[in-house]
Amino acid sequence: MKVSLVTYTNEPERTVAAAARLCYSPVGIEEILEQMEKEKIETFIQKLLDLNHLSPFEHASFTFAIEGISRALTHQLVRHRLASYSQQSQRYVVEQNFNFIIPPTISGNNEALKVYQEVLRTVKEGYLKLVAMGIPAEDARYLLPNASETKIVVTMNARELLHFFEVRLCTRAQHEIRKLALKMLEELRKVAPVLFKKAGPLCETRGVCFEGPMSCGKLKAKT
Amino acid sequence: MKVSLVTYTNEPERTVAAAARLCYSPVGIEEILEQMEKEKIETFIQKLLDLNHLSPFEHASFTFAIEGISRALTHQLVRHRLASYSQQSQRYVVEQNFNFIIPPTISGNNEALKVYQEVLRTVKEGYLKLVAMGIPAEDARYLLPNASETKIVVTMNARELLHFFEVRLCTRAQHEIRKLALKMLEELRKVAPVLFKKAGPLCETRGVCFEGPMSCGKLKAKT
Amino acid sequence: MKVSLVTYTNEPERTVAAAARLCYSPVGIEEILEQMEKEKIETFIQKLLDLNHLSPFEHASFTFAIEGISRALTHQLVRHRLASYSQQSQRYVVEQNFNFIIPPTISGNNEALKVYQEVLRTVKEGYLKLVAMGIPAEDARYLLPNASETKIVVTMNARELLHFFEVRLCTRAQHEIRKLALKMLEELRKVAPVLFKKAGPLCETRGVCFEGPMSCGKLKAKT
Amino acid sequence: MKVSLVTYTNEPERTVAAAARLCYSPVGIEEILEQMEKEKIETFIQKLLDLNHLSPFEHASFTFAIEGISRALTHQLVRHRLASYSQQSQRYVVEQNFNFIIPPTISGNNEALKVYQEVLRTVKEGYLKLVAMGIPAEDARYLLPNASETKIVVTMNARELLHFFEVRLCTRAQHEIRKLALKMLEELRKVAPVLFKKAGPLCETRGVCFEGPMSCGKLKAKT
Repeated sequence: MKVSLVTYTNEPERTVAAAARLCYSPVGIEEILEQMEKEKIETFIQKLLDLNHLSPFEHASFTFAIEGISRALTHQLVRHRLASYSQQSQRYVVEQNFNFIIPPTISGNNEALKVYQEVLRTVKEGYLKLVAMGIPAEDARYLLPNASETKIVVTMNARELLHFFEVRLCTRAQHEIRKLALKMLEELRKVAPVLFKKAGPLCETRGVCFEGPMSCGKLKAKT
Repeated sequence: MKVSLVTYTNEPERTVAAAARLCYSPVGIEEILEQMEKEKIETFIQKLLDLNHLSPFEHASFTFAIEGISRALTHQLVRHRLASYSQQSQRYVVEQNFNFIIPPTISGNNEALKVYQEVLRTVKEGYLKLVAMGIPAEDARYLLPNASETKIVVTMNARELLHFFEVRLCTRAQHEIRKLALKMLEELRKVAPVLFKKAGPLCETRGVCFEGPMSCGKLKAKT
Repeated sequence: MKVSLVTYTNEPERTVAAAARLCYSPVGIEEILEQMEKEKIETFIQKLLDLNHLSPFEHASFTFAIEGISRALTHQLVRHRLASYSQQSQRYVVEQNFNFIIPPTISGNNEALKVYQEVLRTVKEGYLKLVAMGIPAEDARYLLPNASETKIVVTMNARELLHFFEVRLCTRAQHEIRKLALKMLEELRKVAPVLFKKAGPLCETRGVCFEGPMSCGKLKAKT
Repeated sequence: MKVSLVTYTNEPERTVAAAARLCYSPVGIEEILEQMEKEKIETFIQKLLDLNHLSPFEHASFTFAIEGISRALTHQLVRHRLASYSQQSQRYVVEQNFNFIIPPTISGNNEALKVYQEVLRTVKEGYLKLVAMGIPAEDARYLLPNASETKIVVTMNARELLHFFEVRLCTRAQHEIRKLALKMLEELRKVAPVLFKKAGPLCETRGVCFEGPMSCGKLKAKT
């Protein structure tokens, strides 16, 4: 899995802090922007998080290029609707590389891995046969598995990202999307450490857990 | 493919027409609702369509139960973000039926069909072996193909539906989602014929086509 | 203020419960819908709320006609973006009635009320003079105050409504929008008592309060 | 009216072009980004516009600080729901400056201007009296007119901006929001000339006009 932050809103933290400040201030925006020293930004953003006043976080937007992930993952990912996606098409791009993602429970089990790879070999051969017979790629791809590698460009704003981390960094999320969330957060902390300082699953950010009987128990153990 | 309209906003056409009328009228909403005779509703909705004043169409919402479609289709479908989805989970529901969708280019080609079904038999066996070995369903499903049957409940409002039909009833859309769109439209016309009277691809609704060199040529042929 | 629920999704509670059930069940949707007895619906919806699994609540949509509210309120209201609005236009409808909303702090203070009403009389006269001079209504309305009565049709789904109540039933919300939220909730409980049984401010629904130093203290008092 | 583009996504044009290219290409994103020469970007973006393939435009986001506009304008502006707003609050900021926007039809008419300014003087005095009596600012503001100056930070992505320009650069839009749209477009063309090269009202971008009998006739005149 390869996750890179390819671009983002310039000065994301200053922007979020200044936008929020405007709501409560009679002075103009440029004056606010100028007066925002680094320390002030940090204190102010922490206050916004404490007050759950998250709408200003929407002004900072982040764009990731993600490769080496499965279509199982992207079917989950694109369910986050407050985001923008550009994904490699299986309709227009004829499969050539046949890279497949292997879940850890399978890669760590020799017998399972053997079954897995044999099936995928059959799938690959079947797909190529269909294409050779003149079946359009968009139809031959019906054979391609959830495991198929895909590439996607994703843009989310900081508010949606905080929400994404709350649900996808939970131990109940599937391993692959959780790994993706961790890598995205790592990248974000390099360029906007204050905005994402406390990003995490709900149990960490809000001290609540809704997983009921399926909870990992971490929160309960603490209290 | 089975598409049923399970529920929707009561009196969708009267609601849309009355909401729109309110924008331009000094009188109260109940008075407007009462005075809306059937004919008036029809004339008024047609006018809204002509003026491209579509926001009132958002007040009418329609919920479909859809079965017998592929995960290839739902990965396309859920990219429509102004909609609500509840989909059968491959993480929580262990595959038992192994129903697979077959594209017409394959079902109509004996040789291709044979390849297709053999691959799917191997996939089924592989999946069951992995599950028997104790691999969790959420990981074994990495083998499951785009062809896998899924079930989904979808809610869209009439404005989004009109947009959905503009792009998915185009001959350039993939056959399966186009078939779905046709069936949805058929259901809608039974309960809200006026709202969806002129629903169709962009070439029909607006007399424009953006498909460039890939256009089917229907529009050009007309003019 | 007059709030009426003019229409909504048929069988909203059965729909939400059935959509949610589909996610975890191998059987078809119609079978699920049929098997949903009343009691089961109630237990199931309560479970969804406990697990914070709110996406199925989006399938039920509710449309309100609201009159006798101020433009101050609607400027706040339309900031809820996951909703649909049709509002009486001040551009196209020339003001005739000059109904103005009076906040309770003013109606309960004779001296203040006198000032308030005198100013509004001047505003009314000024507006009428401008219109008589041939100034277009859309420009004369620049004189009209936040207090001006407006009418609006609003559609929200049950998930967004639950969120709306969390923030607008808080004692920190402004009195007018809080009163609106209360009246909306009252209407909803007549037709979907299970969905909205526990709707309320965050302190009641989740046992958390983010208002910091401006908190009303109710939650703290409890614990 | 003062409109400044305070921040935006770095390299907006390269980002949009690369994201779009990914959909149709088997190679990786970094390779695509590197190979995107300036000329290529321009050709490619033009092609996307021609094909109405606008989703990649969502990856570029732009943030404006806007001052010297009326609350009449912002009530229209915030109806664009695919955007983020942080607005100066009339609840928390006690009015001090009493700056009021004057529509051109009034500023250009001495008699009307006199009426307008007299009314506003009365409003100002009334508001100050109420505040002096201890009425909370959030209630005293019910007297404040649509003309009241406000400040707002707005973020939209390039796709939504193109839509915003289609409807708000139309001569049928109200003068103030049209002026705002023009100033925003001017700023955007300094940093992303290719993305916004052909931005304009629907008649210019798509050669269609839906204004019916209220159309300005420009399009008809052409053909």
